[in-house]
Amino acid sequence: MKDIINQLNKAFDHRTRLGIMSLLMVNPELDFNALKEQLELTDGNLATHITALEKQEYISVTKQFVGKKTQTLYRATDLGRTAFQEHLALLEKLLSYK
Amino acid sequence: MKDIINQLNKAFDHRTRLGIMSLLMVNPELDFNALKEQLELTDGNLATHITALEKQEYISVTKQFVGKKTQTLYRATDLGRTAFQEHLALLEKLLSYK
Repeated sequence: MKDIINQLNKAFDHRTRLGIMSLLMVNPELDFNALKEQLELTDGNLATHITALEKQEYISVTKQFVGKKTQTLYRATDLGRTAFQEHLALLEKLLSYK
Repeated sequence: MKDIINQLNKAFDHRTRLGIMSLLMVNPELDFNALKEQLELTDGNLATHITALEKQEYISVTKQFVGKKTQTLYRATDLGRTAFQEHLALLEKLLSYK
């Protein structure tokens, strides 16, 4: 039991981060507003969690022009995908432990 | 997706709280040291998370004398058991969503 708990990734403790990563596992890329709408968050709240995941290099950010406006796109990195899958595998173990 | 994420219980965000609740689901009662050893935590860290779960009334605390020493026992309440089971059911949904 303690092995499972201690191996759980701190970066994914918060349910908002579980949500961001889950969405970026099934969508190749999403912009800020899409994430915001899917997760029903304020700008500040979403930005905080995105920054945390970026720092871990679990998600990458690309800015591009769409006409005259910039669009910011988020993608899960390979590192992020692997880390998240490991985290989910541990949660599965924890659930089946009960 | 957002429904699942938004319904996840904030009280169980932190993996230490997942650990405490998991242990108290399978053990009718545990004392402070047993929890501490199982989860490999410092006193302060464990105490903080226990207090948070107590405030939610998800765990209850009983103090009793064993000889001349006091022993503090923790139990999951019915409210805590139900809340945790709901949380696990949501995590299962999130995992199968992928």
